[in-house]
Amino acid sequence: MAAALNCSAAQLAQLLGPNATNAEAAASLICGQFSVVSNKFSDTSYAIDTTYLLFSAYLVFSMQLGFAMLCAGSVRAKNTMNIMLTNVLDAAAGGLFYYLFGFAFAFGSPSNAFIGKHFFGLKEIPDPSFDYSYFLYQWAFAIAAAGITSGSIAERTQFVAYLIYSSFLTGFVYPVVSHWFWSVDGWGGAGRTSGDPLFGSGVIDFAGSGVVHLVGGVAGLWGALIEGPRIGRFGGPNGRTVALRGHSASLVVVGTFMLWFGWYGFNPGSFTKILSAYSSGGYYGQWSAVGRTAVTTTLAGCTAALTTLFGKRILSGHWNVTDVCNGLLGGFAAITAGCSVVEPWAAIICGFVASVVLITCNKLAEKAKFDDPLEAAQLHGGCGAWGIIFTALFATKKYINEVYPTEKGHRPYGLLMGGGGKLLAAHLIQIVVIFAWVSVTMGPLFYILHRLKLLRISPEDEMAGMDLTRHGGFAYIYHDEDESQKPGFPLRKIEPNNATTPPSI
Amino acid sequence: MAAALNCSAAQLAQLLGPNATNAEAAASLICGQFSVVSNKFSDTSYAIDTTYLLFSAYLVFSMQLGFAMLCAGSVRAKNTMNIMLTNVLDAAAGGLFYYLFGFAFAFGSPSNAFIGKHFFGLKEIPDPSFDYSYFLYQWAFAIAAAGITSGSIAERTQFVAYLIYSSFLTGFVYPVVSHWFWSVDGWGGAGRTSGDPLFGSGVIDFAGSGVVHLVGGVAGLWGALIEGPRIGRFGGPNGRTVALRGHSASLVVVGTFMLWFGWYGFNPGSFTKILSAYSSGGYYGQWSAVGRTAVTTTLAGCTAALTTLFGKRILSGHWNVTDVCNGLLGGFAAITAGCSVVEPWAAIICGFVASVVLITCNKLAEKAKFDDPLEAAQLHGGCGAWGIIFTALFATKKYINEVYPTEKGHRPYGLLMGGGGKLLAAHLIQIVVIFAWVSVTMGPLFYILHRLKLLRISPEDEMAGMDLTRHGGFAYIYHDEDESQKPGFPLRKIEPNNATTPPSI
Amino acid sequence: MAAALNCSAAQLAQLLGPNATNAEAAASLICGQFSVVSNKFSDTSYAIDTTYLLFSAYLVFSMQLGFAMLCAGSVRAKNTMNIMLTNVLDAAAGGLFYYLFGFAFAFGSPSNAFIGKHFFGLKEIPDPSFDYSYFLYQWAFAIAAAGITSGSIAERTQFVAYLIYSSFLTGFVYPVVSHWFWSVDGWGGAGRTSGDPLFGSGVIDFAGSGVVHLVGGVAGLWGALIEGPRIGRFGGPNGRTVALRGHSASLVVVGTFMLWFGWYGFNPGSFTKILSAYSSGGYYGQWSAVGRTAVTTTLAGCTAALTTLFGKRILSGHWNVTDVCNGLLGGFAAITAGCSVVEPWAAIICGFVASVVLITCNKLAEKAKFDDPLEAAQLHGGCGAWGIIFTALFATKKYINEVYPTEKGHRPYGLLMGGGGKLLAAHLIQIVVIFAWVSVTMGPLFYILHRLKLLRISPEDEMAGMDLTRHGGFAYIYHDEDESQKPGFPLRKIEPNNATTPPSI
Repeated sequence: MAAALNCSAAQLAQLLGPNATNAEAAASLICGQFSVVSNKFSDTSYAIDTTYLLFSAYLVFSMQLGFAMLCAGSVRAKNTMNIMLTNVLDAAAGGLFYYLFGFAFAFGSPSNAFIGKHFFGLKEIPDPSFDYSYFLYQWAFAIAAAGITSGSIAERTQFVAYLIYSSFLTGFVYPVVSHWFWSVDGWGGAGRTSGDPLFGSGVIDFAGSGVVHLVGGVAGLWGALIEGPRIGRFGGPNGRTVALRGHSASLVVVGTFMLWFGWYGFNPGSFTKILSAYSSGGYYGQWSAVGRTAVTTTLAGCTAALTTLFGKRILSGHWNVTDVCNGLLGGFAAITAGCSVVEPWAAIICGFVASVVLITCNKLAEKAKFDDPLEAAQLHGGCGAWGIIFTALFATKKYINEVYPTEKGHRPYGLLMGGGGKLLAAHLIQIVVIFAWVSVTMGPLFYILHRLKLLRISPEDEMAGMDLTRHGGFAYIYHDEDESQKPGFPLRKIEPNNATTPPSI
Repeated sequence: MAAALNCSAAQLAQLLGPNATNAEAAASLICGQFSVVSNKFSDTSYAIDTTYLLFSAYLVFSMQLGFAMLCAGSVRAKNTMNIMLTNVLDAAAGGLFYYLFGFAFAFGSPSNAFIGKHFFGLKEIPDPSFDYSYFLYQWAFAIAAAGITSGSIAERTQFVAYLIYSSFLTGFVYPVVSHWFWSVDGWGGAGRTSGDPLFGSGVIDFAGSGVVHLVGGVAGLWGALIEGPRIGRFGGPNGRTVALRGHSASLVVVGTFMLWFGWYGFNPGSFTKILSAYSSGGYYGQWSAVGRTAVTTTLAGCTAALTTLFGKRILSGHWNVTDVCNGLLGGFAAITAGCSVVEPWAAIICGFVASVVLITCNKLAEKAKFDDPLEAAQLHGGCGAWGIIFTALFATKKYINEVYPTEKGHRPYGLLMGGGGKLLAAHLIQIVVIFAWVSVTMGPLFYILHRLKLLRISPEDEMAGMDLTRHGGFAYIYHDEDESQKPGFPLRKIEPNNATTPPSI
Repeated sequence: MAAALNCSAAQLAQLLGPNATNAEAAASLICGQFSVVSNKFSDTSYAIDTTYLLFSAYLVFSMQLGFAMLCAGSVRAKNTMNIMLTNVLDAAAGGLFYYLFGFAFAFGSPSNAFIGKHFFGLKEIPDPSFDYSYFLYQWAFAIAAAGITSGSIAERTQFVAYLIYSSFLTGFVYPVVSHWFWSVDGWGGAGRTSGDPLFGSGVIDFAGSGVVHLVGGVAGLWGALIEGPRIGRFGGPNGRTVALRGHSASLVVVGTFMLWFGWYGFNPGSFTKILSAYSSGGYYGQWSAVGRTAVTTTLAGCTAALTTLFGKRILSGHWNVTDVCNGLLGGFAAITAGCSVVEPWAAIICGFVASVVLITCNKLAEKAKFDDPLEAAQLHGGCGAWGIIFTALFATKKYINEVYPTEKGHRPYGLLMGGGGKLLAAHLIQIVVIFAWVSVTMGPLFYILHRLKLLRISPEDEMAGMDLTRHGGFAYIYHDEDESQKPGFPLRKIEPNNATTPPSI
């Protein structure tokens, strides 16, 4: 049985032989039909894979709603409009910049190992390797990275500073990292085709624990460090820590569920194709691997949520829903790198440790008086880094060879699965390099903004809230003007057009 | 024209005959090509059906966000975090338990008629019948059942009691019922292959009016009965009923729309495959049945919503949006059993009666001083039971034979469609058996928890609200601390770390 | 190479010739196999295209949640339940009416150029051209049009008036317009097959800037004009304009993101099929056009959002998130007509101008003392009209010929792309005709309701809010009864069953 449709008319004509009336024409007719069939399979594949990729992209996009609500619920009411505006703009500005040059930096091929250099403004798209749907999918990833960082520096950052760092991150810093690890030309990825992969292995960061989460987390780390904590965060009596709780647990839960929902686009969607047989005609193929990836993702998140539930119950005495939400998301951030190449049982280990990592990072952050309103640096940075290491420990030989096939037929795999240390070495390099790259790009940027007095808002504005001073008013008006005449009702004072504070940028 | 690709090289060689140069090789080449084509169709089918099933599973999962918001909006503000936490945990704990044993109990095959016994921890998955995507889809169903019950006992249940019954329901009670009616080995389902179906018919509970909604509703019924009503519910002056309205109609509407959205995964998705021709080459196939199922689902919900709108307007004098939302969901719960086997016009009848059933059940509940904050027992139990009966009345011969094909070629169908009473008999048995099974499992469980004083919170805690006493604080902080110095502002007192009430479990 | 599977057994038999043992049987066997293959491709196409269309329909449906939240957040708290109820009912009543006759008016074919006349109650559906999934998709569009209008007349319209106009719009006015431009029998559309298209071109309103957005916007314009502005809107000191801000920016952002999410069903989904090769076997096909449509949609919205951000910053001094949201939606409404036939760079122009149009329309509305709480007439009407013109300017020859293939091989295309003025002429006609048709149907309807005193609520009710007087109470209860004993707390007075105002309809 042939492995592909390759009907040779010449061969068939010879076989039908000289006694047929017109063997050549018969063979040509038959093989011509097979050629039509082959083309139709090609069309069908494009339609299925594009459907799969586009709907996955839509799911990833829906994470932006998730981020917006998670962020909004996690900040105080007085800064709600500010943080939501940054989330809308992550998507909107990201759309333009990623179209103009971000996608080109990331995937422009052929290029060098450091940065892409084609497809600016989608020029020459579509080509046989990249269709519009691929761009849309990658755009949705790029804006997720920006969304992470905006959480870290929430409630105290000038809007103009946000516009600058967000554009720089989405348009340059993030695309370069994704080029390194996800482009066929990048120096670090397991899918490298333009040369030998790192340590004969390359980094397996399937959906971006490093490329997305660690990048966003490290950027947030530097932003929050340079800005310093919010007023009052470590200013309780005797220097006690004050939680500065977010204003709406409901929004946090909406955001978490939307992120969970969207993660099914993020992780399983990263296959970008679903119609790929591992052995044609069998029931086990890439569609199974896609499903398995959804399962590992689910299990890691679920385990992290439960671990956090009981862990925080012991530590704080409460059954805390927002902590459980963060734990869940930490599990997702961790499994993102290895979701396609580990067994479901391993995902449970991944989630368990992710929860421990997140709780530990939060403890350390509190000790260090580091203030990240969304725990974004801890969650996406800490759990993201753990996810990279986890993959290097638990990736199985079978799955790696299926998901990252090579001509050589074998690759290094997880250390604890008997696959040696090469994958781990590559993954440690990834952590170091991402940390360094984001630090030398975003760190100075935040620092310069800080020195130019463009980074942080004034203490007066911070106390009053950014919505009132910059964004036209308070986010909520639950009572009408006439009712607010009554004493004890602060909302009526907020009238956007009467605001006497002259708005600065 | 042949019905399937079955090119016989031996036969073809004979036909090409001895005068061909090499008839055997020619035939082998040609049939080999068809064999490749056949395999490629198999691959294509897997890719399409998995895409269809996975995205349907994601939609069903999104119902968990719907439940969370519906529940949150329907309880008082002081219990918001509690109910949302239960919804997050339904999904998270459900993920682990369903992976470890729930799926095995439900679908582990080959097995007996009562309970499955394979696939614990997804061992031996994937196999030719069950891929990961199928597990994910069924997990999303299992957590929906748990979500229903948590509504019934909201606002007064100890968190540890919730953890216990929820695990038991998702991990054992529900999987067993789904085995009975959805596994090929179950004793009750129309899809039974291991023996004759019940009354020569078997139960047609396509997407689970019984398996999911009635199970969740009956569990909620016992929970709410044993707990008793919330303080103040029937304690108005002269024993008048007090509505104890939920705190946010906006969340109720968000939840309802998300559930509606997700129901398109629940009902049409229950085909689990979309590429199945009823007559190859025709425009009418399973894809049409899938679309029809989406239409019947829509029409039943729409009709129930409109009926409730006018019904409640007459009864209460208001145009009530939350009642309309519940009516809508009642219509969906009812059509779930028969959505794939009834005509669109019948779905309108289904929705109309569902609304009447819900209004009646609510009246009865009020008379009986039965307090279910979400109307979950009435809605999912009452309308679910009606849906089971409805299917037995209106299922058409044509659709049943398409959706549940048998070798015998005919099956009993809807009583009012001329199909006799066997289907109705089977369906009445289903209602009785589900009621009995859930009662003998969940009833004693709730009762034991009750006797151990683990079920209901203390009256003091109930008055104060569960968020403050158990979950670290109030769900909302709309005003900052400095503003809350003003009189008349209760929120500032809520400071999680200062809570002096020693938290119990 | 043949262009399609058309194996002729007679021809093949002749070619195999008389020396084969049984040439006819051999040919018949071989061609029979190809026939099976052909049928399997047909089945596969139906499954893929239906999957694509159904999930697109679900996305479009999710826009109803988006509208509900956008509307809820944009009105004052006291009218929240009212507006959300209208959004739920747009979907519910729309479902019934569109099933009973709306779909028949729109797509019932064969018919005349003005109105369809088949498929009432889905009779004779499915047929080779229309499956259930197509109905569901079109229903989701119809309810979107109704949702637009309900925003324009929010906060002051009697519920019974809403029920009447909404049914009339969804059931008659809108279906007729969609028949004109989207049915193969309609007089205006580029896809007309029953005669020559308008100006040899026909209108290219791919996903409905005109058919949906302009229709909804013009209906809203008349409604808001005839009702007049809300009390207090232009009643500040010295006749100053008062913003009457909505009560929740968070809901506005949720709504905007959901609409963005759903627009990926609206625009790319309007292809209704994704498996269509432009040249079989190539990588470029309808799947690419679908992806490109998602990209143009994204870019137009993003550009409009950014333009609005900076534009409003200059005009008002604030970085306003709700304005950015409206700008974004204006960009989407504008690109909807041409999304499939313009280059991505042109979408940026489309979005930029849409933002300018929206800001200008809002300025004009304020000058004219026209009050539309959602800016719906300006946004959907103004930007929708711009989108129609934009398409006539920028549609490319290549894309038009791919998306609207004709036998003649060429069509007029965008004026600025060198395609002449015929397309523009057709599009100007479309704007005029839609404006006229909606005006002569909806205008008198609103006027009659107005004269019958059925349109607007009383000033007392308007001041008190519709939720309290008509819908059973206030939408939010953030504090319990015992807490509300404290002074300064207005919410406790709202007890639905105690409301002494006798509810009128």
